[in-house]
Amino acid sequence: MTLVWMVPATGLAAVLFALWLAQDVLRRDTGTPAMQEIAEMIFEGAMAFLSRQYRTIGILALVTAVAVAVLVGSISDGVKPIQFQNGQVSFATDVVIGRWQEGLLTGIAFLVGATCSGLAGYIGMFIAVRSNVRTAAAAQKSLKDAVTVSLRGGAVSGFLVVALSLLGVSGIFLVYSRILDHPPEIAPFLIVGFGFGASFVALFAQLGGGIYTKAADVGADLVGKVEAGIPEDDPRNAAVVADLVGDNVGDCAGRGADLFESMSAENIGAMILGVAIFSVTHKIEWIMFPLVLRSFGIIAAMIGLISVPFFTDAAPKSKQDPMTPLNYGFYVVSALSVAGLFIATKVMLGDAWYWFFFCGLVGIATGIAFVYITQYYTAGSWRPVQEIAEASKTGPATNIIIGTAVGFETTALTAITIGLALIGAFALGSQADISPAIPPFTTGIFGTAVATMGMLMSAAYILSMDTFGPITDNAGGITEMSGAPESAREITDKLDAVGNTTKALTKGYAVASAGLAAFLLFSAYLDKVKERLEIPLTAELPIDLSKVDVFVGGLLGAMLVFLFSSLAIRAVGNAAGAIIEEVRRQFRADPGIMAGTSRPDYAAAVDITAKAALREMVLPGILAVGMPVAVGLIFRYARHESVVTSLNGITYTAHDASGWLAVSGTLIIGTIVGILMATVLNNGGGAWDNAKKFIESGGLKDENGNTLGKGSEPHKAAVVGDTVGDPFKDTAGPSLHVLIKLLATITLVLAPLFIKSGSVTKTGTPTAAPGGTIEQHAPGLASADTLQDAPAQAVAH
Amino acid sequence: MTLVWMVPATGLAAVLFALWLAQDVLRRDTGTPAMQEIAEMIFEGAMAFLSRQYRTIGILALVTAVAVAVLVGSISDGVKPIQFQNGQVSFATDVVIGRWQEGLLTGIAFLVGATCSGLAGYIGMFIAVRSNVRTAAAAQKSLKDAVTVSLRGGAVSGFLVVALSLLGVSGIFLVYSRILDHPPEIAPFLIVGFGFGASFVALFAQLGGGIYTKAADVGADLVGKVEAGIPEDDPRNAAVVADLVGDNVGDCAGRGADLFESMSAENIGAMILGVAIFSVTHKIEWIMFPLVLRSFGIIAAMIGLISVPFFTDAAPKSKQDPMTPLNYGFYVVSALSVAGLFIATKVMLGDAWYWFFFCGLVGIATGIAFVYITQYYTAGSWRPVQEIAEASKTGPATNIIIGTAVGFETTALTAITIGLALIGAFALGSQADISPAIPPFTTGIFGTAVATMGMLMSAAYILSMDTFGPITDNAGGITEMSGAPESAREITDKLDAVGNTTKALTKGYAVASAGLAAFLLFSAYLDKVKERLEIPLTAELPIDLSKVDVFVGGLLGAMLVFLFSSLAIRAVGNAAGAIIEEVRRQFRADPGIMAGTSRPDYAAAVDITAKAALREMVLPGILAVGMPVAVGLIFRYARHESVVTSLNGITYTAHDASGWLAVSGTLIIGTIVGILMATVLNNGGGAWDNAKKFIESGGLKDENGNTLGKGSEPHKAAVVGDTVGDPFKDTAGPSLHVLIKLLATITLVLAPLFIKSGSVTKTGTPTAAPGGTIEQHAPGLASADTLQDAPAQAVAH
Repeated sequence: MTLVWMVPATGLAAVLFALWLAQDVLRRDTGTPAMQEIAEMIFEGAMAFLSRQYRTIGILALVTAVAVAVLVGSISDGVKPIQFQNGQVSFATDVVIGRWQEGLLTGIAFLVGATCSGLAGYIGMFIAVRSNVRTAAAAQKSLKDAVTVSLRGGAVSGFLVVALSLLGVSGIFLVYSRILDHPPEIAPFLIVGFGFGASFVALFAQLGGGIYTKAADVGADLVGKVEAGIPEDDPRNAAVVADLVGDNVGDCAGRGADLFESMSAENIGAMILGVAIFSVTHKIEWIMFPLVLRSFGIIAAMIGLISVPFFTDAAPKSKQDPMTPLNYGFYVVSALSVAGLFIATKVMLGDAWYWFFFCGLVGIATGIAFVYITQYYTAGSWRPVQEIAEASKTGPATNIIIGTAVGFETTALTAITIGLALIGAFALGSQADISPAIPPFTTGIFGTAVATMGMLMSAAYILSMDTFGPITDNAGGITEMSGAPESAREITDKLDAVGNTTKALTKGYAVASAGLAAFLLFSAYLDKVKERLEIPLTAELPIDLSKVDVFVGGLLGAMLVFLFSSLAIRAVGNAAGAIIEEVRRQFRADPGIMAGTSRPDYAAAVDITAKAALREMVLPGILAVGMPVAVGLIFRYARHESVVTSLNGITYTAHDASGWLAVSGTLIIGTIVGILMATVLNNGGGAWDNAKKFIESGGLKDENGNTLGKGSEPHKAAVVGDTVGDPFKDTAGPSLHVLIKLLATITLVLAPLFIKSGSVTKTGTPTAAPGGTIEQHAPGLASADTLQDAPAQAVAH
Repeated sequence: MTLVWMVPATGLAAVLFALWLAQDVLRRDTGTPAMQEIAEMIFEGAMAFLSRQYRTIGILALVTAVAVAVLVGSISDGVKPIQFQNGQVSFATDVVIGRWQEGLLTGIAFLVGATCSGLAGYIGMFIAVRSNVRTAAAAQKSLKDAVTVSLRGGAVSGFLVVALSLLGVSGIFLVYSRILDHPPEIAPFLIVGFGFGASFVALFAQLGGGIYTKAADVGADLVGKVEAGIPEDDPRNAAVVADLVGDNVGDCAGRGADLFESMSAENIGAMILGVAIFSVTHKIEWIMFPLVLRSFGIIAAMIGLISVPFFTDAAPKSKQDPMTPLNYGFYVVSALSVAGLFIATKVMLGDAWYWFFFCGLVGIATGIAFVYITQYYTAGSWRPVQEIAEASKTGPATNIIIGTAVGFETTALTAITIGLALIGAFALGSQADISPAIPPFTTGIFGTAVATMGMLMSAAYILSMDTFGPITDNAGGITEMSGAPESAREITDKLDAVGNTTKALTKGYAVASAGLAAFLLFSAYLDKVKERLEIPLTAELPIDLSKVDVFVGGLLGAMLVFLFSSLAIRAVGNAAGAIIEEVRRQFRADPGIMAGTSRPDYAAAVDITAKAALREMVLPGILAVGMPVAVGLIFRYARHESVVTSLNGITYTAHDASGWLAVSGTLIIGTIVGILMATVLNNGGGAWDNAKKFIESGGLKDENGNTLGKGSEPHKAAVVGDTVGDPFKDTAGPSLHVLIKLLATITLVLAPLFIKSGSVTKTGTPTAAPGGTIEQHAPGLASADTLQDAPAQAVAH
């Protein structure tokens, strides 16, 4: 029995669930006319930005899709079938899909991936900016209602993202294997374009959204609070609507695209890793497993989400912390994920299933660990945030110094947890003995893939919590601007604080999943290199760090992370300059604005910020896409390193390997540095933010026990830290998650660009392979077509 | 003709030169009694700190030396001779030095290295804190006199460091080869302890000094300028002498130890790389070449230094920029270095000498490039610093944001330059055809070693400029505190600004040399691993990034850089707290201090800061030393990865390789991230510092063209940036240089800890090697003792 039927079933169920949630949210009370007016402006601004952004991204994606199709068509050798012969999994020499057809299929997959990602972001945003005013209205009634509305509004985005990723990947897989009638084991290689398309959209969505949100935030603060001396969210500030719009485009659309990409790329990577096992066992389950496990995740997340309102009632009325029911919901998701993992592995993964079950448990545990690590470093109840608040007593400089130290420190637990998870999953997976022809290395890597899948089972729920953030943030702004009663403001403030935590959690979760996924995507890249070089899939291809090409490629990869962060941070400053100019212009042009008699032109401020943000996203975007390609091409033509590997008596020497070697260095070391830098930026920024909130909530005392609250000198110092942290945690950090995955997918799709065709020589006499006795093809020595070069003595070259 | 006689000759000449300079400086005018009194306090404070620090380091070093001796003695197999047989360089199986003797020799080498480093730091400091008052006195006469005194004072330290490194390495090499009568090709492996000792002292000298200097600086500023409202360098502030002392212990002693270590470790690493070539050619020049090239560097630096006063006269009196003659002097050094490089390569390196000459040129050019890159990013005349100053207009937050963006950006040119230098030197070196038995890989690595040596030829001159910094800084402080005339203050201000530039240059230079040296030290580490595993030196040992052990080891190495920086930055905050408490206590205990009627207890403040700094250096120090060892040991016992390599028909399979694989990842990726992070911290900090100075010098205008100078809001914002940058550029950044090299030397010395003995199996039939026809031993097939295991089919395991 396979569980493959679950994939379309749960995918459709998730879509229906999202539609039901959307309908439920949309039919709710939209509050007072004042609220509706503000909400309408936010809605219009958000949709205007989104349309403009997706139009830009659409054009870029179309051009890139054509470029990818042409590039792959011109450089590829076409796709060869995978065969299991003589105890080893390798590519045959006949071409079943011509190179131009491969290019076309890759380009189409790219466009489908890009479209699905865009669609998920657009619809999710559409509901999110409809949910904010309904949350504000609900907050006038009760906390429970407000939590329900905002969480359901967020869940529309969360479930759509997961459903579209699942349906997209499985749909294109179905079309490329069954309908176009290609062997199922080569289809995963054809759909890597889907992952690249998703990364591409995610990069620009996250960059553009991140730049927009922080430019509006920093700009509104500087021109309003600092220059004009009016409070935050004051309706006289023309930038204030742009600020509220920004919360949505960064956290909702951006993070949605980010996790859409995580799931898609990870699904495809895991399917590619399953190919080697499928080729030996001929059980399609090894390829379909990632999709089925994701289906169980969707069910778990649905039930978890539905359960949240029950936990709201369970807590005593007196101390209603909205984080408590959300945490209980997450426990429900985790528990059900374990159950789903058990069923999926037991039914699908053969006799050695339990090893992979343990791998999945490692992944689920990693997800939970990251939820706690992020809370420790960014919530006010623990040492790090309090330490930053304490340092604010001696001014902004010490606030920044200690904040930086805290940010750097967060890498320790991150690296150790990811390291343990990888080693643990790999070691457990490599214990699984499926067939003598499948080396422990292959099952080990598959184990890390299962861990990543296990972790991402809760993605829909986590994303719902994430989008909950901007919705409640907006609800607070609407409540403030519409002059709603104090009791409603209290509820939205509470929700807003929880939203800050859930946003931080999602980023930690995204980093961890990127870290786990990186390793398996790198393995998929190496499989692609082996395909191109006609080296058996089960041979190891060493990416030797002591080779100068790998070292320098790695140095450049690490540098890419720093330079990209620099550009992203700077982009915020530039775009903020644009909105500041506009608000100043409006103040000058109409003195009535400041007097409160005329309404500022919010739409103009939204529009100018949107244009600036989209302009500013181009340079870092080009760097991210262009640098790995440039490294690969330069090294391919300038250097001529060789790589040697042996399998079953045959020695394969890949000449002119510098291109793909250097790219490997860039990819892996860029990933390692990217994970850590994203952690520093996300958690450092979050800690600064909450240190300010800690002071505002009266947590900081002077030596005589007096509270140093809002308006005190330490508070001013903490505001500096918070402002510094803004572009770190909402622009550069989240964009780095996407950069990491983009590096993986772009190299996967464009690998042939970096590889000289026919650059491998084979020497030696084939010997019996470990699995040579159990396979179904002719056992014994290599057949003529897999060993083209005659057995020979060592050839000097 | 060999030029080896130059090594002791120039080493002694450099010592005599330093003594002559010292005598010249010491016999000069010591200024007014007021100056002498202050200078005496600085001198006493500096010496007190240094004695305390070196006592602590001495105890730590002694314990570590014993530990190293015992560890190496217990885990090593003893030293085997290197032989060239069957066209390949490998270790014989008989042991010529027993393991306990090896342990003893390594421990002694460690102590000698530690002592030389300490001695160079101590004597250099002694003269530097004697030169400051003489510079202050000379500044009352003329700029030229002041430049001469301060540069000569700095040169004592510069030349002593280089001379002691040269004499130390060559002396211990002489003793261990000639006097103890061991073959010259194994002596370089015996003296690696010297490099470890030097790193060990450098780590604690740089950490302790860096923490001390910035704790005193930040503490004095916060308690004086911020709390008490008195100006900088005000004699009523008890911390002010500690601050002046700090300039010396950080920049003079710390950087001296840093570059002492660079040169020693790089010399030893290059000698190890020369061993393989020596074993084939039997020409001792390949081992001695690094020492000879260093000798030419000393001559070049001496002449360059002597030439500086002539250039002072050459410039027109009106615009006497003291940087100009220093730059001209550097050009002289560079030109003479090229000449020396030509002679050394032509005489010593056989027929293919010119390839290595080009490699050396690459190194010299890299040194010059870094001088300019650092100036671009940290001097006020260019875009980066001005951009930060401009951002200060909108407050401290934007100052920090743009400063961070600039800091991140500096990694781009750094990585590209180091990458080009490495690739260039490797490619040039691998063209050198010395013998068919020496693969291009070996000569390529040797090429990178020559590039590093070429770059470090100017080290003595660069270090002289570096120590010039704290001397002129102190001279400024003495002039201020002693109430000397305005004209003298103007001269010392000018010198101080130049000193800031030269200090920044030295750090850029140190980072670049660490980057180049890292690659060759890693190769030396792999040679050591091959020795232990009994794999031929000319076989390649792939450190495969796609192995989970290497990946996770690398992740932990990258994390180490962040965590270490976090601890170093935090240490400054903690130590600053101690001095702030003390100054507050003194103000409370004696109201006469504030009134100016009684003198504060400067010595108590110095002492308390010293204690705090030494206490704070322990935790990051232990992390740096302990983490690579922990990674190696944990992976050695917890994981069992294999590595396969082939040479001339024999396949070597190293089982249980996880220990040394994971350490390789930690070492290399830690190095890459360390180089970039050090660049970020050094240049970011320098740019913040100079953005403040740019504003103070009247470079920033508002929109109406009015100057926004000292005391303006932008200036206050820039002061925040400057304070944030202090622990970055003077504590964490420079300590990272040392961390990088410590990682390399500690793994080199303790490699056997991470390797399971006898873990290699050999299979296959030996074939004729490429060099098999030209060598002096029996050509043809492997002899019995190099191929212990019988030729065999592939063995499954």
